[in-house]
Amino acid sequence: MKKAAPVHILISSAGNAADIRYLCGAEPPEPAVLILNGARGTLIVSEMEYSRMRRTVKRSIAVVHPELIGSSWKKGPADWIKKTVTGKKLTVASGFPFGLAEKLKRAGRKLEISETPLCPQRERKTADEISAVKKAQRAAVAAMNAAIQQIASSQIGKDGLLRCGRTVLTSEMVRATICRTLLDRDCVATETIVACGPHSADPHERGAGPLRAGQPIVLDIFPRSTATGYWGDLTRTVCRGPAPAELKKMYNTVKAAHAAALSAVKAGAWTDAVHKAAADEMEKRGYKTKTIDGVPQGFIHGTGHGVGLEIHEAPRVSSAVHKKLRAGNIITIEPGLYYPHIGGIRIEDTIAVTKDGHQMLASCPKKLEI
Amino acid sequence: MKKAAPVHILISSAGNAADIRYLCGAEPPEPAVLILNGARGTLIVSEMEYSRMRRTVKRSIAVVHPELIGSSWKKGPADWIKKTVTGKKLTVASGFPFGLAEKLKRAGRKLEISETPLCPQRERKTADEISAVKKAQRAAVAAMNAAIQQIASSQIGKDGLLRCGRTVLTSEMVRATICRTLLDRDCVATETIVACGPHSADPHERGAGPLRAGQPIVLDIFPRSTATGYWGDLTRTVCRGPAPAELKKMYNTVKAAHAAALSAVKAGAWTDAVHKAAADEMEKRGYKTKTIDGVPQGFIHGTGHGVGLEIHEAPRVSSAVHKKLRAGNIITIEPGLYYPHIGGIRIEDTIAVTKDGHQMLASCPKKLEI
Repeated sequence: MKKAAPVHILISSAGNAADIRYLCGAEPPEPAVLILNGARGTLIVSEMEYSRMRRTVKRSIAVVHPELIGSSWKKGPADWIKKTVTGKKLTVASGFPFGLAEKLKRAGRKLEISETPLCPQRERKTADEISAVKKAQRAAVAAMNAAIQQIASSQIGKDGLLRCGRTVLTSEMVRATICRTLLDRDCVATETIVACGPHSADPHERGAGPLRAGQPIVLDIFPRSTATGYWGDLTRTVCRGPAPAELKKMYNTVKAAHAAALSAVKAGAWTDAVHKAAADEMEKRGYKTKTIDGVPQGFIHGTGHGVGLEIHEAPRVSSAVHKKLRAGNIITIEPGLYYPHIGGIRIEDTIAVTKDGHQMLASCPKKLEI
Repeated sequence: MKKAAPVHILISSAGNAADIRYLCGAEPPEPAVLILNGARGTLIVSEMEYSRMRRTVKRSIAVVHPELIGSSWKKGPADWIKKTVTGKKLTVASGFPFGLAEKLKRAGRKLEISETPLCPQRERKTADEISAVKKAQRAAVAAMNAAIQQIASSQIGKDGLLRCGRTVLTSEMVRATICRTLLDRDCVATETIVACGPHSADPHERGAGPLRAGQPIVLDIFPRSTATGYWGDLTRTVCRGPAPAELKKMYNTVKAAHAAALSAVKAGAWTDAVHKAAADEMEKRGYKTKTIDGVPQGFIHGTGHGVGLEIHEAPRVSSAVHKKLRAGNIITIEPGLYYPHIGGIRIEDTIAVTKDGHQMLASCPKKLEI
């Protein structure tokens, strides 16, 4: 007797929205439940979403709404799943909702948490997916060029503030330039970072207020294509006017770490080895990572992460993940250094892993002083 | 002996991000774990996010990273929670990750799913919150006016297509106008609907391609303020040129249903009664809701939903929810009718519930033919 394939249950609200989009070829509404049984799938959505999803999903996916399977909207996902799946064994992701799991268990189902991702093929991108990320990344480069142009053409006031005519140039103004440029390319970015001086010392601080000369300005742009749902991710750090010697040294170190990590990338390389290549380069040049007065300083994040239908997805490139890179992975390489008294420097590109190395998905110059 | 208050565990990736933002007064990174013990809270974030969060959260919240509590990033949330909470009993939301729940149970903790929302006070907005939604809603009105102006000023070609000079006016062009107008008001909208003709018959179809005269165009704009994180939500339906008699009748019915639902709103009114007021008005005027050839038609969604730090939050206003409205609730009132052979009509406003009725958060005219 052939062993029955496990039935996978994916829930859009439980971190599976990107998996469902990938498997169905269409963006799932909230909430949506996908029941995968081998190559066939059943997508359960509300009455309101039914026609749209039926029109847009792949042929292998059957779309239903609760009434069609003898349930109702009010009865909720536990009842929909019970009505659709006759077998006892269900496989779910670790992020599956606890409350729903308990209800299914009480109804006699046996839930198993999948050790592997429910949709592992997402990690190796097809040619179409690489094209989609490339397009988003090119939009990021266009936005970066527009932002850098705006900063470079500003005047430096006696007070050190950057000005466009009489107006003080702010993070918000540069962010608006970035958003507009992305919009023209059918991309949306909601959390663009334009962080100057002390703000730049925090990797995820978005930045606000006046921009100043002689200080690092971290520009981190991660647009999502409205049409495809795929992301790009790009960071550059610039300084308007002459940079202090310490900042220049930091910049060159991050640039060297970026190059070292890139050189370490190829199919078969370990993710933690790629991270170590960047970290070693920084150590070698005297930049330590440690906590001082309770504040973590130095290279305080991983070297990169996968990019696709999610802005952060597998594979992660960090000291905490020991995993082999494979051809078709799309990852960022983004080492950075952060010190409260100087600020932060980060340089990031998005690349596809190839058999012998990597493919840069869109190229963008690296220059500190502008 | 006083009974110990339950310890609540909130996870940003498990649908609690808005709760954490509300309780901490700052946007949580991904992942973040908030441990609530009465009025005090401990927010666990990565080293990279530590300084930024420590600077931005409320005073009642202690920020830590895993190393500070004798754990590590690699060990993950189960270990962080074990290191922080000494008590056995934990309360979590129904969306808590199943995998994490199993780990905590194996470590001897007792998990209870909270019957009520972990952060019920979010449903009753403060004056500051009402101001924040008002601001986002005013941005939506500005974007609506710009979109309607663009459609109204188009020329109708002999082929029925709308044109701006020689260019055919498309959903994409109107969506770009909306996004630009919102951007100028520091708001972002990622899934704006500009759906014409057959597209409008699906409530959540975003719309694509040429716009046509004599057909319904549903404009659904839901911007989020970048500064505050609060949303607005606004829908109007327009028709360029004369509308067919059937469409006008449908429009007037939805408008009457919208008015009927608004009249039914006040503190103490039941959510399902508000929905029924809209549904009855449609029935009375001959508009039935039923499934024909497998396609649900008519008034196929609820009348509204709460709006705040999430675009869809409690309280829901539908036949499936029997709950009393309370002063300070912010909800949408958005009845709609959808028929594949005609298209869709939806009219939506966002309002605050008051003791005696409601407060319209931003006003926007209703006119079908433009």
